[in-house]
Amino acid sequence: MTIRVGVLGAQGRVGQAICAAVEAAADLELVAGLDKGDALDAFVTAGAEVVVDFTHPDVVMDNLKFLVGKGIHAVVGTTGFDEARLDQVRGWLEAAPKVGVLIAPNFAIGAVLSMRFAEQAARFFESVEVIELHHPNKADAPSGTAYRTAGLIAEARAKAGVGRSPDATSTELDGARGADVDGVRVHSVRLTGLVAHQEVLLGTQGETLTIRHDSIDRSSFAPGVLLGVREIAGRHGLTVGLDPLLDL
Amino acid sequence: MTIRVGVLGAQGRVGQAICAAVEAAADLELVAGLDKGDALDAFVTAGAEVVVDFTHPDVVMDNLKFLVGKGIHAVVGTTGFDEARLDQVRGWLEAAPKVGVLIAPNFAIGAVLSMRFAEQAARFFESVEVIELHHPNKADAPSGTAYRTAGLIAEARAKAGVGRSPDATSTELDGARGADVDGVRVHSVRLTGLVAHQEVLLGTQGETLTIRHDSIDRSSFAPGVLLGVREIAGRHGLTVGLDPLLDL
Amino acid sequence: MTIRVGVLGAQGRVGQAICAAVEAAADLELVAGLDKGDALDAFVTAGAEVVVDFTHPDVVMDNLKFLVGKGIHAVVGTTGFDEARLDQVRGWLEAAPKVGVLIAPNFAIGAVLSMRFAEQAARFFESVEVIELHHPNKADAPSGTAYRTAGLIAEARAKAGVGRSPDATSTELDGARGADVDGVRVHSVRLTGLVAHQEVLLGTQGETLTIRHDSIDRSSFAPGVLLGVREIAGRHGLTVGLDPLLDL
Amino acid sequence: MTIRVGVLGAQGRVGQAICAAVEAAADLELVAGLDKGDALDAFVTAGAEVVVDFTHPDVVMDNLKFLVGKGIHAVVGTTGFDEARLDQVRGWLEAAPKVGVLIAPNFAIGAVLSMRFAEQAARFFESVEVIELHHPNKADAPSGTAYRTAGLIAEARAKAGVGRSPDATSTELDGARGADVDGVRVHSVRLTGLVAHQEVLLGTQGETLTIRHDSIDRSSFAPGVLLGVREIAGRHGLTVGLDPLLDL
Repeated sequence: MTIRVGVLGAQGRVGQAICAAVEAAADLELVAGLDKGDALDAFVTAGAEVVVDFTHPDVVMDNLKFLVGKGIHAVVGTTGFDEARLDQVRGWLEAAPKVGVLIAPNFAIGAVLSMRFAEQAARFFESVEVIELHHPNKADAPSGTAYRTAGLIAEARAKAGVGRSPDATSTELDGARGADVDGVRVHSVRLTGLVAHQEVLLGTQGETLTIRHDSIDRSSFAPGVLLGVREIAGRHGLTVGLDPLLDL
Repeated sequence: MTIRVGVLGAQGRVGQAICAAVEAAADLELVAGLDKGDALDAFVTAGAEVVVDFTHPDVVMDNLKFLVGKGIHAVVGTTGFDEARLDQVRGWLEAAPKVGVLIAPNFAIGAVLSMRFAEQAARFFESVEVIELHHPNKADAPSGTAYRTAGLIAEARAKAGVGRSPDATSTELDGARGADVDGVRVHSVRLTGLVAHQEVLLGTQGETLTIRHDSIDRSSFAPGVLLGVREIAGRHGLTVGLDPLLDL
Repeated sequence: MTIRVGVLGAQGRVGQAICAAVEAAADLELVAGLDKGDALDAFVTAGAEVVVDFTHPDVVMDNLKFLVGKGIHAVVGTTGFDEARLDQVRGWLEAAPKVGVLIAPNFAIGAVLSMRFAEQAARFFESVEVIELHHPNKADAPSGTAYRTAGLIAEARAKAGVGRSPDATSTELDGARGADVDGVRVHSVRLTGLVAHQEVLLGTQGETLTIRHDSIDRSSFAPGVLLGVREIAGRHGLTVGLDPLLDL
Repeated sequence: MTIRVGVLGAQGRVGQAICAAVEAAADLELVAGLDKGDALDAFVTAGAEVVVDFTHPDVVMDNLKFLVGKGIHAVVGTTGFDEARLDQVRGWLEAAPKVGVLIAPNFAIGAVLSMRFAEQAARFFESVEVIELHHPNKADAPSGTAYRTAGLIAEARAKAGVGRSPDATSTELDGARGADVDGVRVHSVRLTGLVAHQEVLLGTQGETLTIRHDSIDRSSFAPGVLLGVREIAGRHGLTVGLDPLLDL
C-alpha cells in the first residue's frame, strides 16, 4: 500500500525536487501540491497522510497547527525553529497523540551520518581535525556544518575524558593551523569547481580514519525527506533531526 | 589507581610493542612479561589483574584456562578461535563469574569502526562499492577485511530490503568492474609504497559518503589492546570482537 | 583589445555555455552566434576573428573550409576527426598560412593535464594503477579517458624500459584486480552521486603520488575553449589536442 | 655493464638505506662504503665511478673537492649549500669538464614531481590551495615543502597574469582560511598516525585537479638517489635539484 503525500511549497526549487522524488517512488503517491495562497483544506480533501513542508518561517507554524489538528503527519525542512517553537509544536502534539512531526535542519543523509560517525569515533583517536571545502562564493568560514561537527567531536571527547589532539607546533605562519572550535582544528578551503564537501580526519598510532562527505547537488535532501515520509507515521510526537530515524 | 598488566608473548614483535604501550600509559603498570617456557604462576605472584595474550593457537587455550582459574582477566589477540574453542572458554567462565575475557581478531580501532560504519550506512544509499589498496606482496585479492566488509554491507542491505547498486554497464573489459562479493563490487589495488588501506564509497542522489581507513604500521593494534585492558574488568564473561567495547 | 568571437551551434547545450562564457570574459566579445541553417557569411559581416565550432560531424568540414578560406581562426570541439579529415584541414591551411585551427577531443583542462602528468610520472614509479569513478548510467567500463590514460602510461613505461608493476597476487576472486590495459590495471567504480572522476596512483618505495581529476559539471569544457580562443591566433596551422597550448 | 658506486656516510641511517638500495639494483655495484675518519683514497682504489654523499655540511666541501679532482661523479644529499658553495663547486668542475655533480635538497621523486606539476598547472585554474598533513611532532607550520610549493604556484600565476583565487569570505573564525603564502592559502593538519603528506587542489569551472603526495617512510629518497647515480655520468657540470633529471 502506498503512502499518500502532500507537499507545501510545491512550486519552490526544493518543493519541485521533492514532488519529483515522491512521484518517482513506487511506494509513495503525490496527492496534492500547494503553495502560498492555496487553502490547506485541499490536503484533507485529497486524503494526504503525510505533508512535506519546505516553506517559510513566517507560515510554517500555521501550517503545522493545521496539519496536526487534522491528524496529518508532517516532515518539515523549513528553518527558523527555536526551543519556543519546538515547545509549541509539542503542545499541539499532546492533543493529537497519534500524529508524528519530524523537523530537521539537514536532510542530506550523508551529512547527518558523517556527523554522527565523527561523534562516535572521536574518543578512540588521539587526534582529530576537520577540513571543509566549498565553492568560493560562501560567506562564512568555517561552514555551519563544520562548526557543528567540531562541537559534537569536542563534546564527545570531553565526556570520555580525552584530552586535546597533540600538537608540537612552535613556529606557525598565522592561520596555518586553522581555526580552533572548542579545541578542534577546522580548516576551510574555498575553490572554484567545488560545491560542499567535508572531511573528518581521526588518527591514532599507525592508523587514520577519514569520514568524507561530498555533496554536489542540492537534490541531496530528497532521499532524507523520503525516509522521513516513510517513517514518521510510526513515530508519534515530535522528532528533531534525522538521526533518530537512522537507528544507529 | 593503575591497572596491573601482564603480557604473554612479551618477546614477540607484537608483544614488545604492547609492553612498550603499557609502560607508556599513565593508568597502566606492566608487572610481568612472560614467554614460551616461563611458568604462568609469575602472573599470580606479580599480582596481574589483566593479562594480554598474543601467543600461538597451540598454547592459548592452556593459558586461558590458567588465567580464568586464577581470576585474572584476559585480552587475547592470538588467532585460531572457532566456535568449539569459544564454547570451551565460556564453560570456564561460568565457573568464574567475575572474570572477563576479550578475544578479538582485529584490534585496529580504525578498521573495526570503518566496518561498523559501513554496515550502518549501507542501507541509506542507492550504491555502495569497496576499494582496498595494499602493498604488492599481498597474496590474496580482495583482502580478508574487504571481503568481510562487503559481506556485512550486503547483509545490512538485504535485511533492509535494499536492492543491488544500479549499474548500466553493457560493455566491460574483463575485470574492470571488480569482484562481486554478495552483490557488492570490490576493487583491489596493489601498489609499492602502500601498506593497508580501504575505502567504502556510498552514494545516493547528489551526495556520496566515503569511509576510509589507512593503516601504515602494525603498531595500530596497540590502542585497541589498551582499550581492552581498561574495559575488560568491567565486562564479565566472554566478549568476542572489539565492537561491543566501542559502545556504538 | 578584445578578441571578436563567433559561435557555431550557439543554441546547443554546449554552445549556449560557450556563449555565456565568452560574454563573461572581459577580453572576449561575442559578435555572432549561428546555428543549423544560418548563413556562415554572418561571421564575416560581424568581423569574427575566431569561431568556436561545437556542431556535428556532418557539417563541421564545410564550416572549416569556409572559415579557413575567409581567414578566420577556428576552435573545434565537434567529434569525428580521423587522419583523413585532419589531412584535409591541413591542406586547406597550407593555402592560408596565417590561419590557425585547433581541433581537440577534450577541452577539460584538468583532464588533459592529469593525463599528461600521469604520462610524465609513469616511468619514475615501480607501480601504477588507474581508478575511474562514474555515475551508474555509464555504458562502458573502463571509461574512454581511463583507457587512453592507461595506454599513455604503458607507452611511457615501455619507452623507458620500466617493467610491469609488481603483483604477488596468487589467489584472486575473479575481477578483483581490475582490467588489464596494456599491462596497467584499471578499476571502474559506478556510484549514484558521482559524475566523472579519475585517479592515477603511482607508487615507489615509501611514497605514492596521486593525480585526481573530478569533473562535476559539463561546463568544465569552457575554460579550455576560452584558452583555445585566446591562443589560436598565435598558432598558425593545425593544432590537435589542447596539450600544445598548455606549454608543459 | 654495471655502474661502480661508492657511498660516503655509509653507516648513517640514510647511508645504510642507500647501500642496501644500491646492492639490490641489478645495474649498480657497491664498491666502497666510507665514514668519518676513513681515507677517501679508498674510492680511487675501489674504482668508484659515482659516489653518493649524505654526510655533514662541515665535511661535504672537502669530499667534493677530492672527488671532482679524481674524476669521480657525485650525488649529494648533504644540506647546507648556499650560492657561494655552489659557485665553489662550479669552479672545481670547470677544471674537470667530464665530471658531473648533482646536489639536491629533496630526493623523493614524488615530492619533486608534485611540486613541478603544481607549478605547471597553477595558471590554468581560477583557484588553488595547498593542504599539508604531518605527524603532530612537527615544529613548523606550514611545512617547508608546502611553503616552497605555494611560492612556486604564486610565481607561476603572477608570470601568467592570473589573479588571486576568488574568495567571498566575509565572516571568518580566526585562522579558518589558513595561512597566506604569497597569496596562496596553505592549511596545516597535524595528526597522530600520519607521516608526511601534501595535497595541491586546483579548481576551475566544473572541475578540480588534485595532486597528492604521501610519504610514509624515509626510504622514499632511495629511488631518487639511484636515478641520480644512473644519470649523473651523462650530465657534466653542476646540476642543482632533481628536476632536470626528470626531463619533464
